[in-house]
Amino acid sequence: MTTQVYSRWDHLTPVERQVLRGVFWSGAASRGALADTLGFSKSRLNAVVSNLVVGGLLQELGPLSSTGGRRAEHLALAPDLGVLACVDLGATSLHVALVAPTMTVLAERREVADVRHGPGRVMQRVKTLLGDLLAEQRLRPEDVLAVGMGVPGPVEVHSGLLVSPPIMPGWEGFSIREDLAGLVDAPVLVDNDVNVLALGELWHARQPAGDFLVVKVGTGIGCGIVSGGRIYRGADGAAGDVGHICVDPLGPRCHCGNVGCVEAMAAGPAVARDARRAAEAGESERLAEVLAETGRLEPPDVARAAREGDAVALAIVQRSGQLVGMMLASLVNFFNPSHIVLTGGIVGMGPLWLASIRQSVYGRSLALSTRHIEIRPSTLGERGGVLGAAALGLLGVLDRGGRP
Amino acid sequence: MTTQVYSRWDHLTPVERQVLRGVFWSGAASRGALADTLGFSKSRLNAVVSNLVVGGLLQELGPLSSTGGRRAEHLALAPDLGVLACVDLGATSLHVALVAPTMTVLAERREVADVRHGPGRVMQRVKTLLGDLLAEQRLRPEDVLAVGMGVPGPVEVHSGLLVSPPIMPGWEGFSIREDLAGLVDAPVLVDNDVNVLALGELWHARQPAGDFLVVKVGTGIGCGIVSGGRIYRGADGAAGDVGHICVDPLGPRCHCGNVGCVEAMAAGPAVARDARRAAEAGESERLAEVLAETGRLEPPDVARAAREGDAVALAIVQRSGQLVGMMLASLVNFFNPSHIVLTGGIVGMGPLWLASIRQSVYGRSLALSTRHIEIRPSTLGERGGVLGAAALGLLGVLDRGGRP
Repeated sequence: MTTQVYSRWDHLTPVERQVLRGVFWSGAASRGALADTLGFSKSRLNAVVSNLVVGGLLQELGPLSSTGGRRAEHLALAPDLGVLACVDLGATSLHVALVAPTMTVLAERREVADVRHGPGRVMQRVKTLLGDLLAEQRLRPEDVLAVGMGVPGPVEVHSGLLVSPPIMPGWEGFSIREDLAGLVDAPVLVDNDVNVLALGELWHARQPAGDFLVVKVGTGIGCGIVSGGRIYRGADGAAGDVGHICVDPLGPRCHCGNVGCVEAMAAGPAVARDARRAAEAGESERLAEVLAETGRLEPPDVARAAREGDAVALAIVQRSGQLVGMMLASLVNFFNPSHIVLTGGIVGMGPLWLASIRQSVYGRSLALSTRHIEIRPSTLGERGGVLGAAALGLLGVLDRGGRP
Repeated sequence: MTTQVYSRWDHLTPVERQVLRGVFWSGAASRGALADTLGFSKSRLNAVVSNLVVGGLLQELGPLSSTGGRRAEHLALAPDLGVLACVDLGATSLHVALVAPTMTVLAERREVADVRHGPGRVMQRVKTLLGDLLAEQRLRPEDVLAVGMGVPGPVEVHSGLLVSPPIMPGWEGFSIREDLAGLVDAPVLVDNDVNVLALGELWHARQPAGDFLVVKVGTGIGCGIVSGGRIYRGADGAAGDVGHICVDPLGPRCHCGNVGCVEAMAAGPAVARDARRAAEAGESERLAEVLAETGRLEPPDVARAAREGDAVALAIVQRSGQLVGMMLASLVNFFNPSHIVLTGGIVGMGPLWLASIRQSVYGRSLALSTRHIEIRPSTLGERGGVLGAAALGLLGVLDRGGRP
């Protein structure tokens, strides 16, 4: 590895970048499938691949081709390209990982965090954890190929700066890129957390194609939009800010100043608040017990009480699902996605919550849009954020070369 | 013209098609601007252009270039390429036009229609009107380069067939393409009316770029979506079906079976129904007068009464605008469009209605999404549909050649 890592990515031709992107999206693709996908003749592909193997960017895998002489049929990114440093920062959590270019997680750390503590304190933890992981893996900062990071606020993608992040006081105009320059001498790619999650789902789907949504329901509610296989950002980079869609014109007031926002009525804090209110009002013995025993009531506690037959807890879970489903029904009518992936802490509420969402969407959306739609939790689970950040970093290097 | 029209479009190379598309989008572009847009060197562009001029597809316009020898600087599609037969079918209206490839309307007819009469009767009128217009312009069916048609229902674009059109009984599976084959021997392109309107707006913007919405409010409410300069159709071609987005969970029942759909509460029939109810209940003298005098109350009547100071009429206009604005606010939060173009019969309700929409969107959408957003009526006015249909037909020929 070492600094040679960078030089391998410089001076790549557009066609070489295209082949590398094709290998990334396909996982370990066969030459035949890759040539088909890229619209290349097999001989043209082989010529480009030979250069990339010699240049140390691709490796050949698997049995030798039966027809093509002594060439191995399958291709993957070279194993010694360096590692991707991946950061998934949520409103109340921090997940840091080292990921190989083949998208294998090599090492990771998760801990609670609070973005409201500001960039100084939070980024110090990020750097500490990254340093620990590198040491653990016996890697040096020079071995980091790129940093990818998702943050819970709007990002101006070219600069990597946060733009008026509503739940991140003190971060406006803070340069994560400059802050990390002291740790690693590699490109730093920053994007909104739901866009990063959507990139992870795109990678998982093994192709940069399709129209679908990735909806994160946790402390807030946000949506990553995939249109034609690309992350859709909107005219000002603000697309997907669905938490303040109104689901009840007579609903309670939200911190944004409006009434009836789905985030204020159905996200994690709303579920916790409703459960605490029911416990304190003596409406639910089960919830009151949990509150008395642990001093807290979080969405998973409410879901457990609902599964155990508590009617009040069940009503809270169903109400949250119904409201999220109403918001999604509007998006389905408008965007007609092939599927919706649900992620974020509250997804842990489980099947009762999901069933309420599905019921609400099927009931409120038009037949043509719901004929084939699938609504399911992310199969990447808690690793969706760091895997998306790895894809962000790697694609960033592929797009613009390896220098910071 | 004659049958030679077809042969000019056959055997075009991909690069030639690209240059023709560039000329179409730019209007009468200068060679310099066109080369920049396409990323061609000037000499490469000039070589392609020479072929296209010789082939009778392009014409040179304007003063001779000061630097390039005897070459005229500006380019346009050749004037004798034939005409585009354009049809804009609404739920209750029919607009037919002949349009030159330079997008000049040569002749047109508008009349009331009712799609519920079924394809036989409606298409007979389409063919009669097209025949009349051709005769009036002393053109023959062979002079028609392509037919473009917008219809008020979902269309399977490749086949041109209507798919479960909710307000078009009898049209399901009807082939407009085959029906028109008896009249003209040219490609027939069919799409949903709002997608056609969006294509017209894209042409008007002079570039196939941007993220914006075209919202038609008339008998129903529909939305054409432009994402990255292309019409976005969704996973099943059902995108933009926004009329059944819920704006009031306690609202009245819609014909779709749900409650509180924006279409049922704010489109033309709802405004007419509310006005008639107020007139009959003696709540508004002005509306009662109009009803007594003319026997009917349409949205423009309500808007006129509102402008003349009738408080009940004003409340009806504002309520419609407020509800359409609530629906648009959800779309703005999700899609972050640069602008929203309003079109359809009810847009004639005028500035009071528009002001209520804007107020509702600005009040309900997030600051980042509304910082630059523009909400305005279409500048193409009533010709938006036929101009969009012209663009649909011409781009269809550019994509696949001139044979039917």
